[in-house]
Amino acid sequence: MVHLHPVKVRFYELDPYNHLNHSAYVQYFEVGRVELLEELGFGLATMKERGFHLVVTEINTRFLKSAGPHDELVVETGVHELRRASSTWRQRLLRGSEALATQRVTAAMTDTDGKPVRFAPELTAALQPYVADG
Amino acid sequence: MVHLHPVKVRFYELDPYNHLNHSAYVQYFEVGRVELLEELGFGLATMKERGFHLVVTEINTRFLKSAGPHDELVVETGVHELRRASSTWRQRLLRGSEALATQRVTAAMTDTDGKPVRFAPELTAALQPYVADG
Amino acid sequence: MVHLHPVKVRFYELDPYNHLNHSAYVQYFEVGRVELLEELGFGLATMKERGFHLVVTEINTRFLKSAGPHDELVVETGVHELRRASSTWRQRLLRGSEALATQRVTAAMTDTDGKPVRFAPELTAALQPYVADG
Amino acid sequence: MVHLHPVKVRFYELDPYNHLNHSAYVQYFEVGRVELLEELGFGLATMKERGFHLVVTEINTRFLKSAGPHDELVVETGVHELRRASSTWRQRLLRGSEALATQRVTAAMTDTDGKPVRFAPELTAALQPYVADG
Repeated sequence: MVHLHPVKVRFYELDPYNHLNHSAYVQYFEVGRVELLEELGFGLATMKERGFHLVVTEINTRFLKSAGPHDELVVETGVHELRRASSTWRQRLLRGSEALATQRVTAAMTDTDGKPVRFAPELTAALQPYVADG
Repeated sequence: MVHLHPVKVRFYELDPYNHLNHSAYVQYFEVGRVELLEELGFGLATMKERGFHLVVTEINTRFLKSAGPHDELVVETGVHELRRASSTWRQRLLRGSEALATQRVTAAMTDTDGKPVRFAPELTAALQPYVADG
Repeated sequence: MVHLHPVKVRFYELDPYNHLNHSAYVQYFEVGRVELLEELGFGLATMKERGFHLVVTEINTRFLKSAGPHDELVVETGVHELRRASSTWRQRLLRGSEALATQRVTAAMTDTDGKPVRFAPELTAALQPYVADG
Repeated sequence: MVHLHPVKVRFYELDPYNHLNHSAYVQYFEVGRVELLEELGFGLATMKERGFHLVVTEINTRFLKSAGPHDELVVETGVHELRRASSTWRQRLLRGSEALATQRVTAAMTDTDGKPVRFAPELTAALQPYVADG
């Protein structure tokens, strides 16, 4: 299963070539992950309250097509792998059925001092349906 | 009549106080105006093609309440006054029925060299329903 | 006395008209105020530690000239008025001697729950040289 | 040889954990490349005038340390490989001698329609000193 979240390109995110700046793709991917976590009961407030911080440690992003004014896009988010204190995610930015970008993200679970901690068992369970087979 | 456009607070727009930065309110207000113009057939592509540029010359923004993680907001946009080459808009950022901010914007219509030009008659006509009475 | 802080326009801040988006001016003005406060010993860490939050309640910004790629600008910041729990600032964004924008900002001092509190006496004293005469 | 460009963390770039959002690292790296190109005579104006567009096609970014309020950082930029119509860059974000992040960027040279074109010979020559040996 993948999680889908719609985002619409905002005027101030466009660059002088009339394209969405590549850093905005990275921001959209973050929005997708945060929305998924929130839907699973691990929104920012909960995470901070419980002393968790999901920290991005690496991204690998491929920019395949440009996005332009008024484009209505969808961020697709799936989990590639869940480990004790670390996770790998796979995401795509879609315009209809066309992928504008793909991203592989590694994120570590830490406490608020940056020390690695285990994923909460309820979060692991809630993410399970989004873990890709195979 | 007013135009309504939903926006959801994005994680990266929050500041260390867990609040939406005040500059993001200004960006949301721009999104509201741009969306209205697009719906009226004056999206960015059309504006540029026809050599128009609607340039913000002044904003007066009051920040009444803070916005936080995951807030679902609505940008409300109305026109206060339309003149030959200039316009005044009134906007509110709403969370439910609560106003988080209000903004008065003055925007001039120029050509792509920055010289004032008249609003296109079709744009003036299309905006008419959004002009506040009284 | 006024405080001066240099900022250089960044590529991703430019819009499809090749101009600095007006919300970026608002961000630059914030940078100017934050830098001044930091130099006076009231940087973000100190403010949070002491339970202070300087909250922008109103801005009035005039956009006089556009800024473009690679422009090297200076944010000029002065204090217009200091009251018990509130302050008014006057700022200009300069390119050489030319003002690209002016801003009047009202900011309230609150605790971290948003309740108004007095400016710390040392901060009032430190800001005194930046208060405009007359 | 590497190119060095200073950037200072801005308040509105910090997230609720008081850290620089990871997308801001990606923006800083872009600033570093753009500044280098500008110094070599290939600033945005020149690029657009000549019909060039250097398009990021892939980034691989490792986030090693967090950055916080008022941090003064340096973007270090070098060229890994120059081909006919494509290039690979290696960058680091430094705080003093400490690397906060590293990035490998692939960027294609295209015309304004997105069709691949050769790097201009003067640009290739100007970038030569920044190409890493080995």
